[in-house]
Order: sequence, then C-alpha cells, then structure tokens
Amino acid sequence: MSREMLFGADIGASHIRVGRVVAERVVQKIEETTGRSPQAAARQIADALLELGASGMVRLGIGCAGRVCPQTGRVILSPNLGWRDVDLAFEVVRAAAEAGLELLVTVENDVNAGVWGEFRCGAGRGTRNIAGVFVGTGIGGGLVIGGKLLRGASGGGGEVGHAPFEAGGARCACGRRGCFEAYAGGWAVEARYERMTGRRLKASEIWARRGRDPSAAEVWSKAIEVLAHLLLMLSAVVDVERVVLGGGVVERCNGLADEVAAAYKGLVGDDWDAADVVAAQLKGDATLVGAALLAL
Amino acid sequence: MSREMLFGADIGASHIRVGRVVAERVVQKIEETTGRSPQAAARQIADALLELGASGMVRLGIGCAGRVCPQTGRVILSPNLGWRDVDLAFEVVRAAAEAGLELLVTVENDVNAGVWGEFRCGAGRGTRNIAGVFVGTGIGGGLVIGGKLLRGASGGGGEVGHAPFEAGGARCACGRRGCFEAYAGGWAVEARYERMTGRRLKASEIWARRGRDPSAAEVWSKAIEVLAHLLLMLSAVVDVERVVLGGGVVERCNGLADEVAAAYKGLVGDDWDAADVVAAQLKGDATLVGAALLAL
Repeated sequence: MSREMLFGADIGASHIRVGRVVAERVVQKIEETTGRSPQAAARQIADALLELGASGMVRLGIGCAGRVCPQTGRVILSPNLGWRDVDLAFEVVRAAAEAGLELLVTVENDVNAGVWGEFRCGAGRGTRNIAGVFVGTGIGGGLVIGGKLLRGASGGGGEVGHAPFEAGGARCACGRRGCFEAYAGGWAVEARYERMTGRRLKASEIWARRGRDPSAAEVWSKAIEVLAHLLLMLSAVVDVERVVLGGGVVERCNGLADEVAAAYKGLVGDDWDAADVVAAQLKGDATLVGAALLAL
Repeated sequence: MSREMLFGADIGASHIRVGRVVAERVVQKIEETTGRSPQAAARQIADALLELGASGMVRLGIGCAGRVCPQTGRVILSPNLGWRDVDLAFEVVRAAAEAGLELLVTVENDVNAGVWGEFRCGAGRGTRNIAGVFVGTGIGGGLVIGGKLLRGASGGGGEVGHAPFEAGGARCACGRRGCFEAYAGGWAVEARYERMTGRRLKASEIWARRGRDPSAAEVWSKAIEVLAHLLLMLSAVVDVERVVLGGGVVERCNGLADEVAAAYKGLVGDDWDAADVVAAQLKGDATLVGAALLAL
C-alpha cells in the first residue's frame, strides 16, 4: 500500500473533474469547464489538486477522452478535445511542479479508465473478463481480459462503437462508415428521429415518448437491435463473462439496459453461452475512480 | 525444459493427426480418418503415440474441433465431430494407460492451438498481440493478447467467424443469422456461386475463374469485402498488432490474403492504425505444433 495521497482526473470534452480517492471511493471532487489547451487543462488539474489538499508527493491517474498511450502518457489523438500528439503527462507534471507538487502520473483513455473502475469496484467486481459498453453521445467501450485492461497495439483496444455494424453504411463521426455508433450512439438516435419527424429531441426524451410516438418507438427499436448485435459481436470475439452497460444515455433511459440484454440473449442461440448483462454502478465517478486505481 | 517426449494431436472432423514435436517442429507424424466416438479417437491417439516411439511419461497437447474447456480437458460441443460434453482428457489418458503410457495432457480448441503455433513459431513470432483468422470450410479464429491465448468465459473466445456481419442476414451453420462465416467461409462462397450459376465448384476453383467468369468475380469480390470488415472489427475491438490469415481456402487462393489486406486498409481510415496482415506460415501443422507447445 502506497502512502501518497491518491487522486483521479477525468478530462472530457465539456468538463474536467478532479477528485481525491480513498478506499476506492471519491471523497471530494472539483468539476470545471475544460480548458482549451493541454497547458490550460494541466493548470486546472494542478490547482484542483491543491484545493483538494494535496501536498508533497501525490499519485494521480488521468482518464482522458481520445486515443492515448499509457506507456508514454501521451494523447495520440482526441477529436473531442481537439488535441493531437500531446505529451499530457509532461504538461501535468510541469504544472504540478510549479504548484509545489511532486506527481506520479498515469494517463489512460477515459472509457478504459471507467471500465477499470467498474471492474475493480463496480458492476464488474468478482469477474476476470468484462466488456464495458458506454452509450452517451457516442459509444465507447473497454475490455478487461484475464484481469488486465486490453489496450491494444495502438491504444484503440475496446473501441467497440467503431466496429462495423453495416458495411458501407451510415457515415460515423470517426470518419468511417457503418460503425455501431452511427446507429445507436446518442447523436445517431437523435439525428434519425429528427430526419423522421423534423424535431430535435434528446435521446432520453425520445425514449420517454416510445409509448405514444411511433417514430420514437421505431428509432429506439432499431437502436436496441444494433446494441444487441454489438453484444453478440463481443460474445463471439472475446466471450467475456459479463457486459457492463453504462453511459449517460443508458442511465437516463429507464429499462434500456434490460431491453438490450433481452434482445442480445435472443440472438445468441441455444448452443452458445450468453454473457451476463448488467448496468454500470459508478455512474459519473467511474473514470475518476478507475484512473486513480490505475495509478496505484 | 522438461525431459518427457512431446507430442501434438489435431482432431478434425475428417482427419486425426498425431505428431512428435522437437524444437518447435513436427519431426514425424501419423494421419488417419477420425474415429466416430471419443473412445475410438482416444485409442487412435494412443496407438499413434506408440508408433511414434512414445514410452513411459509423455506430454501431449490436443487441438480439437469445437468448443473445449482447457481447464478440465472437456469438449463442451463439437458439431463437426458430433460430440457434446465429452471428457476427452480422461478418455485419452485412459487409452494411453492401457497402452502403457503415462500422459500429461492438455486440450485446446484446434483453431486456438493453430493460432498459438503461429504466435510461437510462425507468422506471429515477435509480437505480443495477434489475431488468427482461418478461412476453410468455415471461418475460425483465435486471439493472443499480451502473449496469452484468449479463451473467453465459455471457451468461445476468438470465434470471429460467428460475429455478426449482417443483422438478421444469411443463416449460418452455427444456427445464428448473418455471421461473417455465412458470407465468406468456403461453404458460403461455394453455395452462393451455385445459386448464381447452378454449378458446384470449390472455393479455390471459383477463385481461379475470376478473370473470365463474372459470377466468380462477384462472389469473391463480396467475400473479400466481408473479410476486410472482419479485420476492421478486430481492429476496433482488440486492436491487435498483426492479423495472421490462414486456412485451406486462403492457402489455395493465390493472392487472396493480399487482396483482403488491401481492402481492410482502405476501410480503416487515416486516423486509425491498421494491423499488419500476413499469411500464416505453418499450414497444416499449425494446430499440431501449437497444441504440443501448449502442453509444455
């Protein structure tokens, strides 16, 4: 057990969160609008650490949106933050040093960190192999195989939302075509509904209207089918014990996780074992806690 | 280094092969038509071991078609062999004991064993993360992640041919719909060509006719697109360093691996790293060698 204070940070496109983690829980946290540049974000983190009572040597795990290299602490590409080839570990260590802190820092993709949090102290506890599927604006994911986070050869492991659902299909935000995300991510559900009705509603609002609005029912029925196929793909490729379904859209759409689980089980067939499908438990703190635990 | 003699066995639907492995190579092997029952197959293996000069205590790795549990040595389900819930390790140890041999035995899925062979001493050497994709009658696969074979929670890890290519699409031999195998496995290519032309040819014969037969060109062009999407899926989910393409159909269709690699690279997009795509090297011995090395 290390004696340094432990912190986690979650750098997303809109918000940056920094929290102190004790016994696998966030005991105190600060949330701010994300600074534009990596230097600005690094200063925000250093200031937050001081505000949270950090002093001397501290451990910090950062979960950052985008493709990262945990070995070097670099952000390879983060379209949502507008960063490319950023030495994030260096920037944060420098900002912390200017604030009088000595930092032991780890950088991980935000979704991977969140999956790690669920694996260690959330819905994945007690297993060795889980897939996390997080449906928010997009669809992120992460895999824990044999108790280890699968990072992949170029930091793209677990990017399940960008596997193909339909060859040559709908254009995805990632630049490719036919990705699962382009059919079942929050943005895709909202765009499809808008094309059908001319109205712009949030994915969770569309979900709430299913009983009285055939377009809403149709859009979500399609998205559930797509998510069920995503889980079927994960069964075939990695055969995980458990799938943890989370993300803002899943949290706000009551019953969605169960409907996806039922549709998936119907697709698996009798001669194959289906994974358990469960809802994420840590909600907004998953990345923060997971990143902190990865720094230990 | 253990001092026992090392053997590998490859139990397929049509043939059973048993070979002695020295320094990662098959030095001598015996091939027979596979016996109907597990007991018959176990006796074939024991007899072959004796013929190959085994005596006293020997190590044997078995690669067996179907879903297996390496921990218990059981075959959970092997549709091609017609076996369900067979204690293969027990049967083989008993048959060997009757032949005066003491056996240290390991059972693995045949394709996983083949991927392990390629990883250890074939086209995957020098990497830590590979996917093997084997196109024969069906499409088998296996994953090595962080230097370890990914077996999955129920022995279904790496069954990439049964991930969905088209939701609700063509009926697959596995009972599900729309699997990659149902579009690009040898049987699917042959069936599609037969539907178009009324003629029954082998997948490799159809491949050889592409220049002068538009139906042959169309069937294979579709199958290449499907295989490229399979590789794209593997990139997104597990982001392996290298994909090893093998299997009887790939071996007999000259240039197929290169065309799949080129189509895959076209799909990946500029902001993602593509895996290396290489041809398998061990051919028919991959499972035998890999199974033997897994027994060490």
